Amino acid sequence: MNNALESNWGNPSSLHILGMNAEIAVNEARECIAKTVNASPKEIIFTSCGTEANNTAIMSALHRKNRGNRIITTAIEHPSVLKAAESLKEFGFEVVLLKPDSNGVISLSELEKALNDKTVLVSIMLVNNETGAIEPVKRAAELTHKLAKNAFFHCDAVQAFGKMPINVKALGVDMLTASGHKIHAPKGVGFLYCSERTHIAPLLIGGGQENGMRSGTECVPLICALHGAVADLPDLQNQLDIQRELYDYTIEKLLENNLATINSSTESLPYVLNISVNGYRSETLLHFLESKNIFVSSGSACSKGNVSYVLKEMGKSNKEIDSALRISFSRFNTKQDIDTLVTELINATKKLRKA
Amino acid sequence: MNNALESNWGNPSSLHILGMNAEIAVNEARECIAKTVNASPKEIIFTSCGTEANNTAIMSALHRKNRGNRIITTAIEHPSVLKAAESLKEFGFEVVLLKPDSNGVISLSELEKALNDKTVLVSIMLVNNETGAIEPVKRAAELTHKLAKNAFFHCDAVQAFGKMPINVKALGVDMLTASGHKIHAPKGVGFLYCSERTHIAPLLIGGGQENGMRSGTECVPLICALHGAVADLPDLQNQLDIQRELYDYTIEKLLENNLATINSSTESLPYVLNISVNGYRSETLLHFLESKNIFVSSGSACSKGNVSYVLKEMGKSNKEIDSALRISFSRFNTKQDIDTLVTELINATKKLRKA
Repeated sequence: MNNALESNWGNPSSLHILGMNAEIAVNEARECIAKTVNASPKEIIFTSCGTEANNTAIMSALHRKNRGNRIITTAIEHPSVLKAAESLKEFGFEVVLLKPDSNGVISLSELEKALNDKTVLVSIMLVNNETGAIEPVKRAAELTHKLAKNAFFHCDAVQAFGKMPINVKALGVDMLTASGHKIHAPKGVGFLYCSERTHIAPLLIGGGQENGMRSGTECVPLICALHGAVADLPDLQNQLDIQRELYDYTIEKLLENNLATINSSTESLPYVLNISVNGYRSETLLHFLESKNIFVSSGSACSKGNVSYVLKEMGKSNKEIDSALRISFSRFNTKQDIDTLVTELINATKKLRKA
Repeated sequence: MNNALESNWGNPSSLHILGMNAEIAVNEARECIAKTVNASPKEIIFTSCGTEANNTAIMSALHRKNRGNRIITTAIEHPSVLKAAESLKEFGFEVVLLKPDSNGVISLSELEKALNDKTVLVSIMLVNNETGAIEPVKRAAELTHKLAKNAFFHCDAVQAFGKMPINVKALGVDMLTASGHKIHAPKGVGFLYCSERTHIAPLLIGGGQENGMRSGTECVPLICALHGAVADLPDLQNQLDIQRELYDYTIEKLLENNLATINSSTESLPYVLNISVNGYRSETLLHFLESKNIFVSSGSACSKGNVSYVLKEMGKSNKEIDSALRISFSRFNTKQDIDTLVTELINATKKLRKA
């Protein structure tokens, strides 16, 4: 990134050497990232964020209306999927929302019932952003391709990319979204995997960059930053095992100290832990913890303090939702961090009980 | 930008102090930039590039089809305006393209004829990217608001922002696009001015960032970089006078040495000079000059070597178009740079004539 900012600042579309050097940097990033998910480089479309990638996938249904008007997604998707799908109702689309069970996992038989010939798009996330619940994407994609010949399958993998191994071919998805700032790249860059046989219309139209799939001068510095972040990823399966231990340790300590109930299922991806510290409002705890340099979230950062529709769909009570905290782990977290969190949660509840 | 990358890396949507600090940085950028164009901060929507801002303005017509289906723009717009407008034909829109005269300036009487009650959008650029031609935006916006009550007026000011004073209120535009990398910010950031009374639908939908007008986690580092670049701008009128002198000097030297014909009009914004070095193909000269560390463009970087439709619309011959070079100035260019350019153009033509 620094090299792109300081020396390699050409425009990849320029015909001269400054442009070519910038283009080379972008393509090197594309190759590295493609390899990580078992795609070919031309199947990677760089975007400015996960939202843009999700919107591109969903809005592409607009240009396929002659094949059908049904979109199937889940009630617990990120707003950039949910609201984009809902915006298509204005254009005559029917949007079916699959409900999760109490673990936050959607049911494949529900999907099976919803799939029909009119279905042009199915979008199911790989890992939920508020609970870490892992959705059965591989089987959902199989079902989709079997029962809805006109449908493309999109998967929002923002919470999964760089945290668990992803193989787009093995998953059988046609499109997949990832974002840089979940894996320590700066905010402002992401990508959409779009398989060679998936023909969609671009969301951003103009100069024809990204092989015509995403116009706009390429954000070379942040694409290079994403390259760096991806190149820096550890062995994901190994890291997942390490992280699973830390996750279980966290749950154990929280329960042992009678501090919280656990909203995430034990089957979740161990990078997101949703808990309810019963009797204390999320925001109060969040601000207590920030004073101790511990930064957690109430629900999703993207919903900025709104009540969690994800927990609601899982059947959690208002009381549980009001006291929900989302703890996000990075691979740099340690047991010591967890001990500090637990100690400060004990301090918080003591202090707040007095008040 | 460095501060945002190294310390202020929170998500502006997070409720804790890290989020708030990031939000403060974004809002400080917004205030500074709004002031520069005489807008209020809430009228500035940050985007990932000029293309996204242009697309947002154009595609918003889709949601106003109940008011009319005519879009008026010019034949010399950037592809992110032209192709976006053309994509709306699929949805029943009629797109009228105003033609430029031989100076690259569109005619107001043509616009007057095209305006009607069915017109929902007029988009005319402030400065053409290939020739520097300044379009009569103020009078075009006046005409639009007088003759087409349902129309919003959008102006692509990517080539003008930071190069000439822009006052959105005095111009009378409803929307205006600007991009960061034209004024020394990194690629990957821009903004759309959208006046308070202009109600458009966002292009990116999701978490509701940017006051609901552009979802997606804010790219705080590049927004801060744009802030820095804008704060760093000199007095634009004064700089324009200095630049005009350099521009005239360049033309004088080129003509004096019988090197080129000038495609830009003398009324152009003096930051873009389009010339034809007759008898030599653009690309040949471009590569000769790059070997001398002089970087010019053949037409627009966004069209990557395609024949210039802008020059074609101005009535230039194929020969003139094939030998066209676009010289872009920054405020850091000097007479010495121009002398070097002229010397190397002389060397190039000598060398190439021999070959």
